[in-house]
Amino acid sequence: MQELIEKGKSAKEAAYRMASVSTDLKNKALLAMAEAMCRETEYLLKENTVDIENGRKNGMKAGLIDRLTLTDERIHAMAEGLRQVAALPDPVGEMVEQTRRPNGLRIGKVRVPIGVIGIIYEARPNVTADAAALCIKAGNAVILRGGKEAAYSNRAIMQVMQKAAYAAGLPEGCMHLVEDTTRESATALMRLNQYVDVIIPRGGAGLIRAVVENATVPAIETGTGNCHVYVDASADLEMAKRIVINAKTQRPSVCNAEEKLLVHQSVAETFLPGMIQALTEKGVEIIGDETVCAVYPKAIPATEEDWAEEYLDLKIGIKVVASIEDAIAHINRYNSRHSEAIVTESYINAQRFLDEVDAAAVYVNASTRFTDGFEFGFGAEIGISTQKIHARGPMGLRELTTSKYVIYGDGQIR
Amino acid sequence: MQELIEKGKSAKEAAYRMASVSTDLKNKALLAMAEAMCRETEYLLKENTVDIENGRKNGMKAGLIDRLTLTDERIHAMAEGLRQVAALPDPVGEMVEQTRRPNGLRIGKVRVPIGVIGIIYEARPNVTADAAALCIKAGNAVILRGGKEAAYSNRAIMQVMQKAAYAAGLPEGCMHLVEDTTRESATALMRLNQYVDVIIPRGGAGLIRAVVENATVPAIETGTGNCHVYVDASADLEMAKRIVINAKTQRPSVCNAEEKLLVHQSVAETFLPGMIQALTEKGVEIIGDETVCAVYPKAIPATEEDWAEEYLDLKIGIKVVASIEDAIAHINRYNSRHSEAIVTESYINAQRFLDEVDAAAVYVNASTRFTDGFEFGFGAEIGISTQKIHARGPMGLRELTTSKYVIYGDGQIR
Repeated sequence: MQELIEKGKSAKEAAYRMASVSTDLKNKALLAMAEAMCRETEYLLKENTVDIENGRKNGMKAGLIDRLTLTDERIHAMAEGLRQVAALPDPVGEMVEQTRRPNGLRIGKVRVPIGVIGIIYEARPNVTADAAALCIKAGNAVILRGGKEAAYSNRAIMQVMQKAAYAAGLPEGCMHLVEDTTRESATALMRLNQYVDVIIPRGGAGLIRAVVENATVPAIETGTGNCHVYVDASADLEMAKRIVINAKTQRPSVCNAEEKLLVHQSVAETFLPGMIQALTEKGVEIIGDETVCAVYPKAIPATEEDWAEEYLDLKIGIKVVASIEDAIAHINRYNSRHSEAIVTESYINAQRFLDEVDAAAVYVNASTRFTDGFEFGFGAEIGISTQKIHARGPMGLRELTTSKYVIYGDGQIR
Repeated sequence: MQELIEKGKSAKEAAYRMASVSTDLKNKALLAMAEAMCRETEYLLKENTVDIENGRKNGMKAGLIDRLTLTDERIHAMAEGLRQVAALPDPVGEMVEQTRRPNGLRIGKVRVPIGVIGIIYEARPNVTADAAALCIKAGNAVILRGGKEAAYSNRAIMQVMQKAAYAAGLPEGCMHLVEDTTRESATALMRLNQYVDVIIPRGGAGLIRAVVENATVPAIETGTGNCHVYVDASADLEMAKRIVINAKTQRPSVCNAEEKLLVHQSVAETFLPGMIQALTEKGVEIIGDETVCAVYPKAIPATEEDWAEEYLDLKIGIKVVASIEDAIAHINRYNSRHSEAIVTESYINAQRFLDEVDAAAVYVNASTRFTDGFEFGFGAEIGISTQKIHARGPMGLRELTTSKYVIYGDGQIR
């Protein structure tokens, strides 16, 4: 695919130069990009209108149209996002460790940019600015491939950013948008090993599956979240209720929202009626196992599929378990390795849950909703990794770098 | 493939239990495995004989037969390797960092096992013991898939290790050998996403390519090494000669051996004749660019392919460059991101080379032969990663772990 080969080559060349660009210059460019975005609001809105009209013509749902829509305010928010990235510390150049070997070699491990990062994402145009800013700040070149629904908006945002960044002095070619928005271009980007060092998909389960199946470039899965809250026998039940309501209802459409509630059998009778009432008052649909359906006959009986599903909606699956062992086994069987919480007053059970549950983030007595780069204090987030290599959990600037060993010798041989 | 599904499932279940096995128990098991290996020397030698006979029947080269052959001494060396792994510090449980957020959440990042590691390797039976020991020590379950040439030896080693490890108390299923040694079993292992968390290929370029092409499980490429030594204008030429001889000839068949020599034009005339003489005295074949062929007419003219090739032999490609820029550009174009060295007395050029060369390990005034887990002080090595995500350069026990965020709350909600 000619477009990808050209952009890949250009990005690779720029990546070598990006590796030695100073923090000052990167920050200056990010601020110039923010300024340009504000100055070009009118142009961005005009291009965005084309996407919105196309969306309406194609019968796009109101919710998606809303996510696609740019406004004055949203453009200023994007610009503000760029300024925030400029304000973050630069991870590049940090000496992670340095040792001196018996033969006198000094071996240092230093953070360096990854090189060329490919990002495949879906409809929201603000990702174009966010993702480019984070990759650039970490010293990488970036190739973005957004969804066709936002093609005009994405192209306009990229043009405005490129012009400002290159005028500020960043190497030309350090950011690209793939204009071909066919499925083939996404697949080609995942297989562009010659030029791309890592692929990060940001989107739903279908996109993640396509990357797992087709990518030959190393990928970082940012994933789905089938997150559980387990209410232990010794839980503070009022705290449990607050945590469940928050984890389930504060923002049900995101990956760190709770999808399943597990309740120890010894507290089920006391806890479930009030909990279910509080959930239904918030409009949450209850899917339950046999015990739950007996307590609350309006519950929909859970199927095997329910336990593995990420609803991303005002729906919750509830199951009564006989022990903490059963809770942990259920979670490790069905979860998506994202975020899991226990509510307990037991020291032993808290430790055991932290040790044995297999997930990127495991909580004691807190809502799963905190799994987020901002909440973790990283100041930014490119996604939440649910795989185990390279990065696990919220990924900030540091996760957009790799390391290099630098070795200072004075003639050592083996 | 039934065998893989069964072993995958068994390994996955064992992996959950392995995550909480104490360091003491892991060490006890490793020592028991070492002891069993020494006790069962006769059995191991007998099984090894079958592989050797099959190798001879199939016309295997003497060098390969030698690598395949077990002796009393080699079996004791394998056992000693297991004891050394037992003596290494356990990476699991290390709290890498812990922060306290404004809302009181304490967020810790702790090292945990990866889970199930699949290793695909070629002929040498000692890898069976080495790789299993490292994976186990880092708290993982492991599925090994060795080459068919060593099938009997590998099976015998695995049986001896399993019996000792399980008797010592390690969870059954924590180590498996795939007995099917067809190409299909390797491919199936790379695609066993349901049970395998990461795949590490250990072998030549063909195996690495097969993994890049076919793996759906995240893989860590351990790679080929087209390593360069660049002799700068200001180099101490005696030191340069020592380093080149060492890097090229001390062990030419390994990935951190030098394959190419770049020489700054201003020292070419002084340096090349003596250097070439020293190399040829060591039996090294010279492949050169035009200048080199002019200085040394017996040199074989280099083709474009030569610059990218990993000879793994007593052969060297030599090129004269006009500047350090040209040297860096040539290296970044042709190298395999493994190990690169500059010999220089210039502070500026040393820094520049360290900054701009894209490789796992970049040296000033030392031989590339030091890129090795033991030389780096890790006490062990599972391979040398030439990719940029997860691990770069020599991988020790730490690189066989991932991290998990553990979050201590007291009722926090968003």
